[in-house]
Amino acid sequence: MSSAHEANPLRDPADRRLPRIAGPSGLVIFGVTGDLSRKKLMPAVYDLANRGLLPPGFALIGFARRDWADEDFAQIVHDAVKEHARTPFREEVWQQLLQGMRFVQGDFDDDAAFEQLGATIQDLDKAQGTGGNFAFYLSVPPKFFPKVVQQLKKHGLADEQNGSWRRAVIEKPFGHDLASAKELNAIVHEVFAPDQVFRIDHYLGKETVQNILALRFANTLFEPIWNRSYVDHVQITMAEDIGIGGRAGYYDGIGAARDVIQNHLLQLLALTAMEEPASFDAASLAAEKTKVLRAVRLPKDLGSATVRAQYAAGWQGGEKVIGYLQEEGIDAKSKTDTYAAVRLGIDNRRWAGVPFYLRTGKRLGRRVTEIAVVFQRAPHSPFDSTATEELGQNALVIRVQPDEGVTLRFGSKVPGTSMEVRDVSMDFAYGESFTESSPEAYERLILDVLLGDSNLFPRTEEVELSWEILDPIEQFWDRSGKPAQYPAGTWGPVEADEMLERDGRSWRRP
Amino acid sequence: MSSAHEANPLRDPADRRLPRIAGPSGLVIFGVTGDLSRKKLMPAVYDLANRGLLPPGFALIGFARRDWADEDFAQIVHDAVKEHARTPFREEVWQQLLQGMRFVQGDFDDDAAFEQLGATIQDLDKAQGTGGNFAFYLSVPPKFFPKVVQQLKKHGLADEQNGSWRRAVIEKPFGHDLASAKELNAIVHEVFAPDQVFRIDHYLGKETVQNILALRFANTLFEPIWNRSYVDHVQITMAEDIGIGGRAGYYDGIGAARDVIQNHLLQLLALTAMEEPASFDAASLAAEKTKVLRAVRLPKDLGSATVRAQYAAGWQGGEKVIGYLQEEGIDAKSKTDTYAAVRLGIDNRRWAGVPFYLRTGKRLGRRVTEIAVVFQRAPHSPFDSTATEELGQNALVIRVQPDEGVTLRFGSKVPGTSMEVRDVSMDFAYGESFTESSPEAYERLILDVLLGDSNLFPRTEEVELSWEILDPIEQFWDRSGKPAQYPAGTWGPVEADEMLERDGRSWRRP
Repeated sequence: MSSAHEANPLRDPADRRLPRIAGPSGLVIFGVTGDLSRKKLMPAVYDLANRGLLPPGFALIGFARRDWADEDFAQIVHDAVKEHARTPFREEVWQQLLQGMRFVQGDFDDDAAFEQLGATIQDLDKAQGTGGNFAFYLSVPPKFFPKVVQQLKKHGLADEQNGSWRRAVIEKPFGHDLASAKELNAIVHEVFAPDQVFRIDHYLGKETVQNILALRFANTLFEPIWNRSYVDHVQITMAEDIGIGGRAGYYDGIGAARDVIQNHLLQLLALTAMEEPASFDAASLAAEKTKVLRAVRLPKDLGSATVRAQYAAGWQGGEKVIGYLQEEGIDAKSKTDTYAAVRLGIDNRRWAGVPFYLRTGKRLGRRVTEIAVVFQRAPHSPFDSTATEELGQNALVIRVQPDEGVTLRFGSKVPGTSMEVRDVSMDFAYGESFTESSPEAYERLILDVLLGDSNLFPRTEEVELSWEILDPIEQFWDRSGKPAQYPAGTWGPVEADEMLERDGRSWRRP
Repeated sequence: MSSAHEANPLRDPADRRLPRIAGPSGLVIFGVTGDLSRKKLMPAVYDLANRGLLPPGFALIGFARRDWADEDFAQIVHDAVKEHARTPFREEVWQQLLQGMRFVQGDFDDDAAFEQLGATIQDLDKAQGTGGNFAFYLSVPPKFFPKVVQQLKKHGLADEQNGSWRRAVIEKPFGHDLASAKELNAIVHEVFAPDQVFRIDHYLGKETVQNILALRFANTLFEPIWNRSYVDHVQITMAEDIGIGGRAGYYDGIGAARDVIQNHLLQLLALTAMEEPASFDAASLAAEKTKVLRAVRLPKDLGSATVRAQYAAGWQGGEKVIGYLQEEGIDAKSKTDTYAAVRLGIDNRRWAGVPFYLRTGKRLGRRVTEIAVVFQRAPHSPFDSTATEELGQNALVIRVQPDEGVTLRFGSKVPGTSMEVRDVSMDFAYGESFTESSPEAYERLILDVLLGDSNLFPRTEEVELSWEILDPIEQFWDRSGKPAQYPAGTWGPVEADEMLERDGRSWRRP
């Protein structure tokens, strides 16, 4: 099999040279009938198989309430792969994957179903050679986490026997605040040891996010200016153009800050601001991220350094859309934030005095995620002031999505017979520079789970530190009046613009 | 006139905002029948007029041996403009220019002709309001310089009277070595004061060369890493694909080092390496360039740090071409260099230990001029060594011509499920970033002469310092054996590759 793998044209050159292929193993998906499972997990499993990164006897078990036979489940997977997989459909890959596909029917409190799951795993160990190595993917609402992990424990499914491994994969939200996160962590860790638990923050699986580390630490150019001596401030933005869609039940009471800042944006901040790790093993990375998160300082005056808001009716993509409070299932008195912006400081030698502005929102101008490191102006300009009127601040922008790449903004002489300097951009685009297409975040992350590589998974401590940062802000907002409003399709409330104006700065319009 | 100028669509925005318009003046071209005059000077005068940067009564006087009337001269200018001007032909601009156009016929030792020139200038002062302000452009072989300037003196044409100005414009070569340069300077300065003399190094008129100063000093990004702590070495290349063409008489005995390194490449080195000037006035700029040229250190062992060579027969653009020694008019025993490469050091705090490699040659792979600042590798890599196998050194490349712009080369993560870093490029291209088209170097430089702005003209001291650098190399080559050989169409002799290999480096293939 391994030589066949080496010739696989779908493997990245990196994979060809440094094969990271999962050993004997299988994946159990709880909540297999859900959206995430069909749109992301099943296609990712297929894509990994297609790229030759799964073992030939790989097993995939679906667990759900539906009264399905193995064939019904296989058909669902087949349809999901056909519709959502990144790589082309190949019948022989599908047939091989099919050999290890099983379905277990049951409720989460149904002991017989978990016994059945155990038996299925044993069957697959024999039939497919999975060696007892299984990951349990909890693609279920968080309220079911305790039940599922307890059932796994009760039926001996979390036990690692004879050198085999068992792992739990958890999707966000990791709690609702620090207290609930600790409670959840306690429940999970009663059953699984810390290195058995993989928390998915799918942003960390994105190529552009992993590239932050390559950019900063593989190059000579950037690190010398990556500090308070040269950086004026950092803006981290995750903007969505969509509203809450059908997710009222999930979203209301959670809001933008808990949904995005607590995990994605604080992780991006950590990767942008952290010191160079001793190596890229999981422990070294986690140590640096934890260290910088621990140094994050909340502004004293939360009123002037945070903004929350809700989208009002407006226009998006040429269509009139309703406001948050008019969405189906949303209480007309809801104070849930669909937009959140905060200014954070980092109390260390590298970043003292440099504000990190984080913002996220739904129904904004367009869908974009980026990290903009904005540099100070040159300390002195030998140019006439008229020559630099159109010169802004230098900036390095890491475009996380959708137009993945890096932009450098700097001043250049305007062609003409006098000296005038104006901002121009240099661009690096993934799509143009690499023939390799980027794996989906879930491909990378599922493979990492199977390999036991926890680099890209936030640890208990990071999750709790992030809640420690967010809790006082949420509590302040709870005590405050109503959220501000912004028309759908704009770039957020005027209050957010004013927040930066007070600092003599302005938000980028990405 | 000035309001008409402001609405001129051919003016750059920079010119519109900060008008640099020549005052009452005229230009006398000696050697007006030559190639330079027809291909560059006449079109540049027209383009300046077309852009509204010349005074309405501007005067253009041609001086040559031909038996022409004013109309014949005007026809020659007309044809040259039609063929070579950068901006569109506009009859009204042409008609206005025509009003001030005159021809003076004569030899350089013909006193009557110079009297006639004086009378013509006086006529134009009256008819066109040129105010006695005239620049004399010596577009003639250097052997005629002494005669022409002496004639100008003898006939009172160099005298600045009643607040008017007289200026001399000289083309390279500024001498053949230090001694001849000093002699030439002495002759010129007997007639003209230092601030009346404008030495053309047309490279300094190029947008991309002026942009070196904007890049370095208008931005925050580059200057912190522009020193020995981060720069490994600098490569400055001017490659031509053509041979000597019909210029055997000029070229043989001069060679690549005198023709290109002494002026263009040492000026590029000075702009790349100099400290920030207090301002961009001519004196401050010259002070910094002079300072850094004075710090240039020749390698002790000239044999291992310099290479000269001649092109042999080879292939260029799919055609077989002859070698230098077979060119018409070249002595088969000529030792003239058509390729020269040198390693220079700069003895100051910023650059100690950083080699500057300069190379130029004819019949090389393609026509390109660039400055490549190559950075050291990161002092430590937290990546696996296998992850960075395809990672080179970071580089900032200023593309002077023909594809004007800036390239930044750095490492980025290769898409894939493992961490691998590979070199990618970011690009800034003048053509894409600015709608303004770049003025020709001669437009800029002639306008500067008329404005008395000597920023972009090397001063006496710079010229002499450059010869001080080159003289010992030329003398060493005179004592050495034959030049090395390289096949036409390649990137120079193996000796040049070996020169860098000894330093553990290699030439870029631009």
